[in-house]
Amino acid sequence: MVSEFELIRRHFTRPTAHTVLGVGDDAALMRIRPGMELAASTDMLVAGVHFLAGTDPRNLGWKALAVNVSDLAAMGAQPRWALLAAALPSPDEVWIAAFAEGLFACAHAHSIDIVGGDTTRGPLTINVSVFGEVPAGEALRRSGAHAGDDIWISGTPGTAALGLAALRGRIRLGAQSQARCVGALERPQPRVALGLALRGLASAAIDVSDGLLADLGHIAECSALAAEVRDDWLPWAPLAGLTSDATLARECLLAGGDDYELAFTAAAGRRGEIEAAASRLGVTLTRIGRMQGGPAGSVVLVDAGGSPLPVVARGFDHFESAPE
Amino acid sequence: MVSEFELIRRHFTRPTAHTVLGVGDDAALMRIRPGMELAASTDMLVAGVHFLAGTDPRNLGWKALAVNVSDLAAMGAQPRWALLAAALPSPDEVWIAAFAEGLFACAHAHSIDIVGGDTTRGPLTINVSVFGEVPAGEALRRSGAHAGDDIWISGTPGTAALGLAALRGRIRLGAQSQARCVGALERPQPRVALGLALRGLASAAIDVSDGLLADLGHIAECSALAAEVRDDWLPWAPLAGLTSDATLARECLLAGGDDYELAFTAAAGRRGEIEAAASRLGVTLTRIGRMQGGPAGSVVLVDAGGSPLPVVARGFDHFESAPE
Repeated sequence: MVSEFELIRRHFTRPTAHTVLGVGDDAALMRIRPGMELAASTDMLVAGVHFLAGTDPRNLGWKALAVNVSDLAAMGAQPRWALLAAALPSPDEVWIAAFAEGLFACAHAHSIDIVGGDTTRGPLTINVSVFGEVPAGEALRRSGAHAGDDIWISGTPGTAALGLAALRGRIRLGAQSQARCVGALERPQPRVALGLALRGLASAAIDVSDGLLADLGHIAECSALAAEVRDDWLPWAPLAGLTSDATLARECLLAGGDDYELAFTAAAGRRGEIEAAASRLGVTLTRIGRMQGGPAGSVVLVDAGGSPLPVVARGFDHFESAPE
Repeated sequence: MVSEFELIRRHFTRPTAHTVLGVGDDAALMRIRPGMELAASTDMLVAGVHFLAGTDPRNLGWKALAVNVSDLAAMGAQPRWALLAAALPSPDEVWIAAFAEGLFACAHAHSIDIVGGDTTRGPLTINVSVFGEVPAGEALRRSGAHAGDDIWISGTPGTAALGLAALRGRIRLGAQSQARCVGALERPQPRVALGLALRGLASAAIDVSDGLLADLGHIAECSALAAEVRDDWLPWAPLAGLTSDATLARECLLAGGDDYELAFTAAAGRRGEIEAAASRLGVTLTRIGRMQGGPAGSVVLVDAGGSPLPVVARGFDHFESAPE
């Protein structure tokens, strides 16, 4: 049988671009540039909880890194390095090679060195820890929103959740819509360039991994404010172009996780700069509400007249409502 | 049901001592001191593979961090921060509280800030990533050994493996021996102070997690040398004091993993300094052989006359020989 060491050597040891010492010792060694803080995050993906068992290992490799990179994007940090730990039921080398291909594709896309890791036998579980640099004091935090700040969202939240609904047979999508939605689910594109552009511009930021309203709740809670979201300002049109099931589209946009868009707040006086950044980066940014005084952490969805609208599911909690 | 967010808040959010931003945002923020390199390592522990299912969660919490800290010790790095990711079958709060108690006990023992993490539902799996600082260029690598260097080992390798044999009913130990061996298995004490003392003194180092001969093989391979281990120099006496089963003691010392002692090499001219460090730190260090030319990565066990001795098992590979 192929040994753990041989598998690591064959598939996970590639040249590094900006690392003192990479895979192959007890620890990796990196140098942080002067004036920079280190931003670090970790995410664990479990088969049957975060991804379907039959997921293409290429996509899984991509996504395992991308969801972590998204956390750095939400801090306004430049991704630099990652560690991988994986438990695999058996050392299936074809699967591992495909997984590594997807992982390194995402690493290349963001100039990330994979600097170390751990492989072991066990129920299929992937853990990535990712490290980035951000100028000292300039990171985007969840806690920085002020009353009166606008709330913004990038892209088309709900697309990935629509893809999941399609894969589960809950809905049938046209071929093009299916490709787009499943692509958003399986190959998320973390908003790194947007995160960098928002330094000094946004007052708070988060990546939408648990669901739009749930993640806005985190900004609201950390900033000791309430978030008011205007239902009629939300980017419904792109979702309506993907499915005619308005009920599902509504659930996906408000509570669907896994989009890895950035939700952020900014002073109303910065609208012009934000729109300029959106245009420069080719990213759609939609202003969807504003922060205000009120119960800390509350998120209210209102209609055009300011009346509250009911919300059923707010988001995804791994212990409260887990998909299979 | 208690939510993921509430569990994290209750059990894993504690004040940090040297961290810009800890648990609760998309990423943690840390400052590396000037002149320092960042050392980073990750280890995944899977129930049924790395620990017995009934393991006391306090001990598991301790060990999950300790085995990572040991990797930093082997680099001569000062531990500073850690990230935790955990998949749990159910949010059993009593279990989680005990696990957190053990984790933070180890963190306190080494002045480590737990700066972030991820909890999810899934088969019991614990992943810790750990970060330390080491003066630029001074880290202990596996690759630095020279022909003629002495080989040293700390403590009593084999103790943890003896503890595992006892827990599995393969051997009966006296009450004191049992406590000592199971303690070594479940509450390993990473050799941080020794690693720091070996900077500028050892030419190469590794922590013994896979088994003494297997891990010496890594130093030999990375240094493009062979390792010759003198059977009669090995620290047999302490093991003989723990069990009368000489065959098992032999297997445990040569191939037992999980001890987290440091194996290292150093020039013969540094023996006095090494013995002084051992005395100062109260750590037993035993000179067990020397590095020499020969097939890169080979490890030969020889008797007092220099004749090779047979070795059955060399160490632990998670895909080749996995315990249940």
